Amino acid sequence: MIRIGILGYGNLGKGVEKAIASNPDTELKYVFSRRNPESVKIYTQSASVKSIDELLNYKDEIDVLILCGGSATDLPTQTPEYAKYFNVVDSFDTHAKIPEHYENTNKASKEGGKISIISVGWDPGMFSVNRLYGEVILPVGSTYTFWGKGISQGHSDAIRRVEGVADAKQYTIPIKSALTEVRRGTNPELSTGEKHFRECFVVAKEGADKQKIEFEIKTMPNYFADYDTVVHFVTQEELDTNHKGMPHGGVVIRSGKTGFEGENTHTVEYSLKLDSNPEFTSSILVAFARAAYKMNQEGQSGCKTVFDIPPYMLSMKSRDEIIKELL
Amino acid sequence: MIRIGILGYGNLGKGVEKAIASNPDTELKYVFSRRNPESVKIYTQSASVKSIDELLNYKDEIDVLILCGGSATDLPTQTPEYAKYFNVVDSFDTHAKIPEHYENTNKASKEGGKISIISVGWDPGMFSVNRLYGEVILPVGSTYTFWGKGISQGHSDAIRRVEGVADAKQYTIPIKSALTEVRRGTNPELSTGEKHFRECFVVAKEGADKQKIEFEIKTMPNYFADYDTVVHFVTQEELDTNHKGMPHGGVVIRSGKTGFEGENTHTVEYSLKLDSNPEFTSSILVAFARAAYKMNQEGQSGCKTVFDIPPYMLSMKSRDEIIKELL
Repeated sequence: MIRIGILGYGNLGKGVEKAIASNPDTELKYVFSRRNPESVKIYTQSASVKSIDELLNYKDEIDVLILCGGSATDLPTQTPEYAKYFNVVDSFDTHAKIPEHYENTNKASKEGGKISIISVGWDPGMFSVNRLYGEVILPVGSTYTFWGKGISQGHSDAIRRVEGVADAKQYTIPIKSALTEVRRGTNPELSTGEKHFRECFVVAKEGADKQKIEFEIKTMPNYFADYDTVVHFVTQEELDTNHKGMPHGGVVIRSGKTGFEGENTHTVEYSLKLDSNPEFTSSILVAFARAAYKMNQEGQSGCKTVFDIPPYMLSMKSRDEIIKELL
Repeated sequence: MIRIGILGYGNLGKGVEKAIASNPDTELKYVFSRRNPESVKIYTQSASVKSIDELLNYKDEIDVLILCGGSATDLPTQTPEYAKYFNVVDSFDTHAKIPEHYENTNKASKEGGKISIISVGWDPGMFSVNRLYGEVILPVGSTYTFWGKGISQGHSDAIRRVEGVADAKQYTIPIKSALTEVRRGTNPELSTGEKHFRECFVVAKEGADKQKIEFEIKTMPNYFADYDTVVHFVTQEELDTNHKGMPHGGVVIRSGKTGFEGENTHTVEYSLKLDSNPEFTSSILVAFARAAYKMNQEGQSGCKTVFDIPPYMLSMKSRDEIIKELL
């Protein structure tokens, strides 16, 4: 049994708890939280909740610690801190800061003789692996990543900060004509705004100026200004009823040519349709936690990414079974 | 530069030659053939053609030998034979015999201190990797492989053996309603015949009994009897004009549930649309030849499969570049 600890019990931490229940070679031992442990109720009866301050006391009872905090403030310090004492897996997703996060975590893991795997999830994560497989198979070609249709937490938050807004949800949606063009193999150059539009469901505060809210959303730099944006005003009840889930998805497309004259076109697509973004991400985290454990058992240490993991290490099956059943 | 040798110069061997031209860190040194070398014309001016009998004389001039023979009679003997002297990559695709082929090749590679990677291509190959990634991420779920639309060489050959048939091409085609059902996430149980139908374009010999030919095709055990099969009679000119390519493709779908009650459904799809089956397969062979070379440079030996290769090893980019650009 691979004994797992969870640090941070939000949507992602809860997702990891559920994923552990679907992976019979893993067991949840402890959930660590900044909150008073007695106030945190978990589902798994055989596990218990502890304060983050006690984490190091449990280092011999945990094979892999899955870090379920946020990329903005939690993971940049937590991952390198705990990588010294535990095999760790995180879902750090601030793309521009990944090389720095890698360096810090690698140093800590090497020091402690442990394995860390960072930036695990679907993007970064499975989408990254597919971007790599795509370009190595078809070196002459272009790679396209489309996100959605799905809820973007960051964009929903940005709308909520607009004056007069009570609540909001934002969907990122691929533009169909762009997808069609890419699938046709014409290798068009497309900006993110040419690949996606944004649909916003907004609850206005009583007496708020809706026209002004719509204008402020649509012209918001970085978030909306470069996109076609649609704004719908709805009631809080409508928002709660029709937009309560956390669906997401997306597609990575590699389109490339082979032949001395580039006479043959090939398209490789990896696509996801997810009912729950956090539950899917945490399912990936648990599979990579297994690999972290196995690699450390083999005597390896240091920071790894999804690119470093031989796929068989993710499985609870033996290598022989995998070759027999899946090759 | 990774120096590559090709053994066997059919469609696959020619595809490897083209793929090498698209991978600037590889170069073709020799093509080996059973035919008289002077009768074999290749495209690459800097490479030369040699007799298969001379292969071992060139073992210090080749970093990886790509075996481009057939799975029925060539590869079962060639791969273990040459794995003793070369890093080798093959596309052995007789699924049931893979474990035996693995054992024989592994023994030879270990003996010679070389790396072999067997069963490389898209199925077995990239489809296998995706079947694995799918089930480790969503352990509660089902995996579906659909092939086509594409030409099946084996089925085309089988039709050509029917009395009265001059020539034929057979397309394997996924049944749309089955695909739709799988994508809906209902996890249906489907036989291969419930997932595909077969469309045959047949040139009858003069005076042949077309009704009899059609009956014999449709009732042929293993090949057609378990499928809905459509037979079209065409002229040789029509066959040559409209069915001359080697297109193929397919999709691996993993559909699974998360949540304590399985309340959330997720669908992962990996799909291919290929203008040229052999050129796409050989592009994959070249990427894995790079990995074979790198692993052997690191001192590793033995037989590997697509499941054993950390994805970064497939790339001509450095690990740092990959993390920065693709994660």
